[in-house]
Amino acid sequence: MSSKLFAIVAGAGTGTGRAVALRFAKAYPVVLMARRTESYHDTVSEITQAGGRAVGVSADVTDSKSLVSAFDAIKKELPDFKLAAAVYNVSSGYTIKPFLELRPEDLNDSLAGSARGLFNFAQNTIPLLLDAVPESEHSPTLLVTGATASVRGSAKFGTLAAGMFARRALAQSLAREFHPQGVHVAHSIIDGIIDVPRAQAYAANGGVEDGKLKPEAIAESYWHLHTQPRSAFTQELDLRPFVEKF
Amino acid sequence: MSSKLFAIVAGAGTGTGRAVALRFAKAYPVVLMARRTESYHDTVSEITQAGGRAVGVSADVTDSKSLVSAFDAIKKELPDFKLAAAVYNVSSGYTIKPFLELRPEDLNDSLAGSARGLFNFAQNTIPLLLDAVPESEHSPTLLVTGATASVRGSAKFGTLAAGMFARRALAQSLAREFHPQGVHVAHSIIDGIIDVPRAQAYAANGGVEDGKLKPEAIAESYWHLHTQPRSAFTQELDLRPFVEKF
Amino acid sequence: MSSKLFAIVAGAGTGTGRAVALRFAKAYPVVLMARRTESYHDTVSEITQAGGRAVGVSADVTDSKSLVSAFDAIKKELPDFKLAAAVYNVSSGYTIKPFLELRPEDLNDSLAGSARGLFNFAQNTIPLLLDAVPESEHSPTLLVTGATASVRGSAKFGTLAAGMFARRALAQSLAREFHPQGVHVAHSIIDGIIDVPRAQAYAANGGVEDGKLKPEAIAESYWHLHTQPRSAFTQELDLRPFVEKF
Amino acid sequence: MSSKLFAIVAGAGTGTGRAVALRFAKAYPVVLMARRTESYHDTVSEITQAGGRAVGVSADVTDSKSLVSAFDAIKKELPDFKLAAAVYNVSSGYTIKPFLELRPEDLNDSLAGSARGLFNFAQNTIPLLLDAVPESEHSPTLLVTGATASVRGSAKFGTLAAGMFARRALAQSLAREFHPQGVHVAHSIIDGIIDVPRAQAYAANGGVEDGKLKPEAIAESYWHLHTQPRSAFTQELDLRPFVEKF
Repeated sequence: MSSKLFAIVAGAGTGTGRAVALRFAKAYPVVLMARRTESYHDTVSEITQAGGRAVGVSADVTDSKSLVSAFDAIKKELPDFKLAAAVYNVSSGYTIKPFLELRPEDLNDSLAGSARGLFNFAQNTIPLLLDAVPESEHSPTLLVTGATASVRGSAKFGTLAAGMFARRALAQSLAREFHPQGVHVAHSIIDGIIDVPRAQAYAANGGVEDGKLKPEAIAESYWHLHTQPRSAFTQELDLRPFVEKF
Repeated sequence: MSSKLFAIVAGAGTGTGRAVALRFAKAYPVVLMARRTESYHDTVSEITQAGGRAVGVSADVTDSKSLVSAFDAIKKELPDFKLAAAVYNVSSGYTIKPFLELRPEDLNDSLAGSARGLFNFAQNTIPLLLDAVPESEHSPTLLVTGATASVRGSAKFGTLAAGMFARRALAQSLAREFHPQGVHVAHSIIDGIIDVPRAQAYAANGGVEDGKLKPEAIAESYWHLHTQPRSAFTQELDLRPFVEKF
Repeated sequence: MSSKLFAIVAGAGTGTGRAVALRFAKAYPVVLMARRTESYHDTVSEITQAGGRAVGVSADVTDSKSLVSAFDAIKKELPDFKLAAAVYNVSSGYTIKPFLELRPEDLNDSLAGSARGLFNFAQNTIPLLLDAVPESEHSPTLLVTGATASVRGSAKFGTLAAGMFARRALAQSLAREFHPQGVHVAHSIIDGIIDVPRAQAYAANGGVEDGKLKPEAIAESYWHLHTQPRSAFTQELDLRPFVEKF
Repeated sequence: MSSKLFAIVAGAGTGTGRAVALRFAKAYPVVLMARRTESYHDTVSEITQAGGRAVGVSADVTDSKSLVSAFDAIKKELPDFKLAAAVYNVSSGYTIKPFLELRPEDLNDSLAGSARGLFNFAQNTIPLLLDAVPESEHSPTLLVTGATASVRGSAKFGTLAAGMFARRALAQSLAREFHPQGVHVAHSIIDGIIDVPRAQAYAANGGVEDGKLKPEAIAESYWHLHTQPRSAFTQELDLRPFVEKF
């Protein structure tokens, strides 16, 4: 475990967020952030019991003031620690419906979770990541979770796609601005159903084994992205089950 | 002039909006929509004096209620007219700045003009366009203006790109949902400086002649998109000056 | 009809090539080029009978020497004429098969028709197009026909995609080199089945009316591309039937 | 070291090929393939002296017969071994020149090394990779090296781009056909100058440290791709120095 470095995962629920927190906890104390305590409570315990260090923080990333308070609390909890990795894995609320049945709130919800949340999260984490550049073994990294809807506006997925396209735009722009300063920003297009408890009823790809993305596999790729030296940064990769049509 | 059909241009200012209004006015009565009367006043006069019909309507596309009122007013002004073409050409406010100097409002402004405005405009126009399918000579068309930032998140252009990526996502999703119903949705990537009065001081491409996009040229391509028969719809094209680097 | 300007269509068969030749023949004498006389014979007659001027030339575009001879013949046939538009519409031979059943010749055939043919055609036409820049009303134009496989390597379509990706790469590179010199190079992604006699048995999109691309509609968009002024060139657009999934 | 599994690297020169061979040699015996013995001789020694197993094979991947002979020789050298990973890292010959100065051979050279070579290599390796699916710890993998020119046809880079676009098309098509059969096919866009001896004089990115891609860093990402479980395959990623403009 590197001393004096920590990681933070926003959107630390049962799937990718949990797996990424567990993976990064092998190397760093990890802050798990979610709106509700229930989302991260069990994972915090799991990490702690395994001998790692985990801190849960409740915050609403779409609310810039809530986020500033959360980062103040984190600073008190981990004084002198620098930020090695920040993962933005927040799911936006979204509604899949014929366009003419959507309400303006449906678009707002998607934009809030997908774009405004990342904006706020990046404004709070990038100064910390920059500050860690001289000391972090691996380039300080901002990892952003995307989806099929990040690159494709399907029928009836317009509001989801609007948010996810916007999220990808921000990640790309941040990469272009901060890569030269040593902070690595990568965006992953998760193209398929993630194998989480609440997706159990959904037999993706005909129910074939490994037809859904294992959160642990995603986490391993996130860890790889974090460890890439600055001479060879990946800005974007896709991840999908072997049987996924694309 | 086709009788009983009209066109509407949202974002009818001095550049593309004005030129598109003038072009479509050769075929249809045209509604010019902008936040402020000054934006469309002169173009309405120009069309009227040339023997065409133009109606100016003040509305804020980012406010769904303002837009509903505006469309009520349009219905009274043009009863029995069906909508042949709707052009979304609204510029979002945006700020080009280092990311850490941006405020949350900068993102909100961009998302409002680029995505929420299109969402509202489409919710009001698509029912009218669908209604015109049986009678319109050309497939009823929703034309959406994009920019370089629609497909590229450059450093310091993050908030602009977030909005424009989101706008493109919506246009793509609408195309996939409404093309099969006979409404054509096309997105144009305007990749360069437009030759408008306020850009006069900016010598794009070394000041070479035609180094900026002529609004009339853009308008001609918009008209072409409108006239494409449904057996061969374009969903996206780019437009740039011959000397533009890309 | 512009005097002293002509157009040439390579791949002038029954579908897009014929329709483009007919469309451009309204403005220019047209040279129709194909490997076999039968391919262009009827279209040449059709244009001539309608009062236009058409010249048929047999050549194999994949053979650079054959093409040089053909252009010598064209020069004799149309002395003092300058080239306003050149259309590369040649279909490559291709085989759709499981990859392990393909032979090296299958790849070669695709690369020859898709990439080598365009390379040869561009080497012969670009000097003529450059020469016409000062006199042509519309910017001299090289139009290149692409397909779904130009941007997507589907399973079992590998050799077709290899050729069409390569064709698109050449078109893009030529655009970047020659746009600043006044020659317009545009690539069209034809995404769907074209409504030609030999596709009659194939009920694309459930046999719905206009479920295939009408060659005349494609030709009209090609003509529009040709007439774009240099302040607003399109480098790429897509064309597909309204009911096509994408 | 996994017993009874081996890896092969085509294009095993001084840069990426050497580094990938060294990385994979930590886990597997490695076959190094190049046209000339000099290309792989030192790396074979280096691996052997470090206690690994390496076999050098001279072959011309652009010649399907030469490749069949080479694979016969490999089979004799490593009987009972199955293929865990195949890396296609062959550089095509290419010429950067104004288009009108290029000769047909320039295009042919690029297509041969970039597309035909991969075609031949895949036809020989995919049956072996499929055969290893039941036994390999990691999904058998075909890794393909791309470049900036794989996704961008720059002025004067037309023939290079034609070949690299075609290579990417083949890799994509192979992924879509063979992923569901358990063979992982990934394409890496190497966007920058690789830090090899022959590039020493070229001060990429102003000569800044890590301004060129370290071959070892590329190799580490290739290894990561190889180890991805089939529930989360990456088909494409980019790799570039932190200071590279993109």
